[in-house]
Amino acid sequence: MWNRSHEKTVATVDRAKAEGLGDKLVGFEQMADMVASLQKPRAVIMLVQAGRPVDAVIAGLADLLEPGDLIIDGGNEMYTNTQRRQAELAKKGLLYMGMGVSGGEEGARHGPSMMPGGPREAYERVKPILEKVSAQSDSGPCVTYIGEGGAGNYVKMIHNGIEYGDMQLIAEAYDILKNVGGLSNEELHTTFAEWNSSELESYLIEITATIFTKKDGADFIVDKILDKTGQKGTGRWTIQEAAEHGIPVPTMSAALDARNLSALLDERKAASKLLNGPNPDNVHVDKVALVKQVKAAVRINQIKRRDKRCTGWVLCVCFVFLCSPSHASCLFPCASLAFQLYAAKICSYAQGMNLIRAAGKVNDWKLNLGEIARIWKGGCIIRARFLDRIKTAYDRSADIASLLIDPEFAAEMNERHSALRSVVVLAIGKGVSVGAFSASLAYYDTYRRDRLPANLTQAQRDFFGAHTYERTDKEGSFHTEWAQ
Amino acid sequence: MWNRSHEKTVATVDRAKAEGLGDKLVGFEQMADMVASLQKPRAVIMLVQAGRPVDAVIAGLADLLEPGDLIIDGGNEMYTNTQRRQAELAKKGLLYMGMGVSGGEEGARHGPSMMPGGPREAYERVKPILEKVSAQSDSGPCVTYIGEGGAGNYVKMIHNGIEYGDMQLIAEAYDILKNVGGLSNEELHTTFAEWNSSELESYLIEITATIFTKKDGADFIVDKILDKTGQKGTGRWTIQEAAEHGIPVPTMSAALDARNLSALLDERKAASKLLNGPNPDNVHVDKVALVKQVKAAVRINQIKRRDKRCTGWVLCVCFVFLCSPSHASCLFPCASLAFQLYAAKICSYAQGMNLIRAAGKVNDWKLNLGEIARIWKGGCIIRARFLDRIKTAYDRSADIASLLIDPEFAAEMNERHSALRSVVVLAIGKGVSVGAFSASLAYYDTYRRDRLPANLTQAQRDFFGAHTYERTDKEGSFHTEWAQ
Repeated sequence: MWNRSHEKTVATVDRAKAEGLGDKLVGFEQMADMVASLQKPRAVIMLVQAGRPVDAVIAGLADLLEPGDLIIDGGNEMYTNTQRRQAELAKKGLLYMGMGVSGGEEGARHGPSMMPGGPREAYERVKPILEKVSAQSDSGPCVTYIGEGGAGNYVKMIHNGIEYGDMQLIAEAYDILKNVGGLSNEELHTTFAEWNSSELESYLIEITATIFTKKDGADFIVDKILDKTGQKGTGRWTIQEAAEHGIPVPTMSAALDARNLSALLDERKAASKLLNGPNPDNVHVDKVALVKQVKAAVRINQIKRRDKRCTGWVLCVCFVFLCSPSHASCLFPCASLAFQLYAAKICSYAQGMNLIRAAGKVNDWKLNLGEIARIWKGGCIIRARFLDRIKTAYDRSADIASLLIDPEFAAEMNERHSALRSVVVLAIGKGVSVGAFSASLAYYDTYRRDRLPANLTQAQRDFFGAHTYERTDKEGSFHTEWAQ
Repeated sequence: MWNRSHEKTVATVDRAKAEGLGDKLVGFEQMADMVASLQKPRAVIMLVQAGRPVDAVIAGLADLLEPGDLIIDGGNEMYTNTQRRQAELAKKGLLYMGMGVSGGEEGARHGPSMMPGGPREAYERVKPILEKVSAQSDSGPCVTYIGEGGAGNYVKMIHNGIEYGDMQLIAEAYDILKNVGGLSNEELHTTFAEWNSSELESYLIEITATIFTKKDGADFIVDKILDKTGQKGTGRWTIQEAAEHGIPVPTMSAALDARNLSALLDERKAASKLLNGPNPDNVHVDKVALVKQVKAAVRINQIKRRDKRCTGWVLCVCFVFLCSPSHASCLFPCASLAFQLYAAKICSYAQGMNLIRAAGKVNDWKLNLGEIARIWKGGCIIRARFLDRIKTAYDRSADIASLLIDPEFAAEMNERHSALRSVVVLAIGKGVSVGAFSASLAYYDTYRRDRLPANLTQAQRDFFGAHTYERTDKEGSFHTEWAQ
C-alpha cells in the first residue's frame, strides 16, 4: 500500500501486524516502489476522493504502469468521469475499472458489496480476489460483473439513492411513532427490533433499533443530535440522472429534499414561529392505546390476520378514529406503520431499478437486474431480506416493466396500500411531514391509473404553444384553435 | 429577416404585407445580404432550436458581423451554452445575449415577457426596442435587465419549471373536481371561470376555463385528448439545477414525474388491471351536494367568511364527511379547492424564487427578485394577479429567506393549510393521485418545523459511515461507536 501521507501507511501496516496479518500488508513511501513491487500484469486499487484527487493519483500511476496493467477506482465517482478515464488510459494500453463499494466501516472489515464496471477482461483478472473479499450471501459472493464503462459506478450511485429513500422512510416512521404515537426511545427500540424480525429485516432497521439504546449519561444520544443532515454527491446525482432519463423517482427525490430542508435549521426555527400546523385539538390520538397497538402491530402474522379482517374498513375506521379517540383500538393494527413502510419501500425500489435499467439501455450496458439485487443482499447499507424477493421477481421476468406489477409485489401492494393511505392521512392531520411516504403513494396511485388528467395538460400546451396533442379515438397529431 | 428555408421568409413577408405592415419587414435569401442591410452597430435576434442549431447560426453570423455587433438568442437555451458562446464571441469583439421569451403564440403577436441576460451594454442598446415590443403591465413593460452571463436563460428556465408546477396543480384540481366531485365539463368551465375572478386569476386558469367549452361534434375535445404529456428540456433542467444547488423544489419535481408517468400509457393500462385503488365504497361522496358546494366555494368572499367560521373544525368535518355523506354540506366551502390551489401555488413559487436566488449567488448575477416577479405579470404563461403580491413581498424585504415567511403570505398559508390538508386527505382516500399537492404540503410542513427527524438520519450516517454529527447542546463534531 501507499498513501500520500507516509505516516498513515506506517500506522496501517503496524495495525495490520498487531492484528495478526504478519507481513501480508507491505507499505511503501514512494508510489514507484509500490508499483515496482507488484506482480505483472499489475492491479492497483485506489480509494481517494472523487474528482480531481482521482485524476491526480491516476496521473502518478499512469507514468509507472505498463500496458496491460489495471487500475481500479473504488470510490463514489460519477460514471462519466470513469468513462473519460477509461478512454484516456486505453490509449496507453492500461485497463481501468470503476467499482462502487458499499458497506461502510463494517463492510471494510468483514466484506462489502462490490459493483465493478469496465472491460470484462479486467474483471475476470481480479474476480477470484473480489469474490473472496466481498460479503457472502446465501446466493453467493456479493460481487458480480456489472457491465462496460461506468456501469459499476452507476449502479452504486442508485444504491445510494435507494439508501437515501430507505433512510427517509425510516425517519418519517420514527417521526410518526414519536410525535403522533408518543413512543419513548425504549419503545422505539423495541418497535424497530421487532420490525427487524419481520419482512422489514434489514441493516438500516437493525442499526436504527440499536441507535435508540445509546445513552450519554442520563440522555439518549439520538435526542441530542442536531436535526441537520449532511450529504455527499450520489443522492444529488441520482435525482439529476433520473430527470435526464425521464424516470420518476419521487421517493428518493423527497429524501433529498428532506435533507436539504433539514440543513436550513435557522430558517426553520424562524418559520416555526410564523407558520402554523394543524390545531392539535383537531386530531385526537389516544397515546396509551397507540403505543400498545403499534407494539401489537409489528407482530406481523397478527397484522396480516387483522388486516384481512379489516380490509375495506381501514379508511373509514381511520377517519372516525381521528375524530373519536374511543374508536382508536381498531386503527393501528390495520393501518400499521410496518405495513406502510414496506409498501413505500416497494415503490422506492421499483423507481430505482427502473432508473438503472433506463441508463443501462442508453449506455448498452446489458445489465442483469436480478444479479444486481442479489449482490445487494449482503455487505452493503441497503442489504435486506427484501432484496431476495426482488431478485426472484427479475428471475421470473427479466424485462418486467416495473416491480409493482410482479405478481407477488402486486399482491402485497394490493394488501398494503390502504395502510399507506391511512398513515399518510394520519400524519397529514397531525402536521407531521411525510414527503417520502406521500410521494410513494402518489407514485403508486399514478402508475396504477389508466386515465390521468394529463389530457388537460396537453390541451393547455396546445392552447398556448401549439404543441399539438394525440387523441384517444384516432391516430395522428392534432391542433385546435382554442382561443377562437 | 432571414430563414434557412427561403419560402418561409417569403411567406412571412407576404403575410406581414397583407396584415398592413407595408415594407417594414424585409426578407433576404442570403444571410450575408440581411447582415449587410443592418444599421451598425448591428443587432440580430435568432429564434432557432436550442443546442447545435444555435451554434450553426452563430457560426454563419460570426463571419459576417463586425466587432461591436450584437447577437441575441431568444430560445430556451441552457444557460451554460449561452455563457460558452459569450466567451467565444467576446474574443471576436461580438456581444452576445441569451434572452428567454415567454408568451406562446399570443405573446408573439401581442407582446411577450422577455428575460434578457448578458453584457449590460448590450441590453442598454436594445432596451428601447424591447420595452416597446414586450407586454405592458400596470407596473411597466414586461422586460428588465436580468443579469450577466446566462442569467436570462436561467430565469426563463425557472419560469418554465414554475409553469410545470402550476399546470400540474391545475390538473390535480381538475382530477378531483371530475373524479371525486363528478363535475361535468360545463360545470368545470364555470368553476375555472369563477376562479379566474378570484385571487387565482391567471392566464392558465383562464385558458383552462375555455378548454372545457370546446367541442368536436357532440364530444368535448378535452375528453378525446390522450393523457400522455410531452415536454421539452426546461422542466428537466430545473430539477437538475435544483439538485445541483441543494434547493428543494418538490412541487415542480412532482410535476415532472407526473409528465413522465403519463407518458407510460401502455404500462399504466396494464397496471390498472393488476393494482387496486381504495374500495370506492370506503369513501362516500354526495355528488350533487359537492357540485353545489364547489360552485359556492369559488365565491371567494364567501369562502373566506366560512373558512374563518370553520377554522379548527375543518379536519374533523372532513373526516366525518368522508364516512357520512349527510355531513357533506359543511365540507367543501371550508376545504375548498380554490383555497388549496392557492396555498400550493405559494409553496411552489417560494421554491422557484429560492432556486433563482441560489443560482444568482453562485454566479454573482446580482438578481432583483422583485423585478423578476414584476416582468412575469404580463405576456408570459404564468402571468397572474398573484405575481404582484410576490413583487410586493420582495419590495418589503429583498433578502427574505422564503416567500412563506413574508407576513402576507404567512397569514394566507396559516389561513389555508387546513384546506390543503383536507383536500389531499380527500383525494388520497379516493385514490386520486395528488403528487404536486401533497409535495407542496410536505414542503410546508417540513419548512415550518423547528425539529425534524433528521437527527435519526445523522445517527445512521455516523453509525455506518462514521460521518460524525453535530449536537443540540454543544459545539463541534461528534462520533459514537454505536455498534459496541
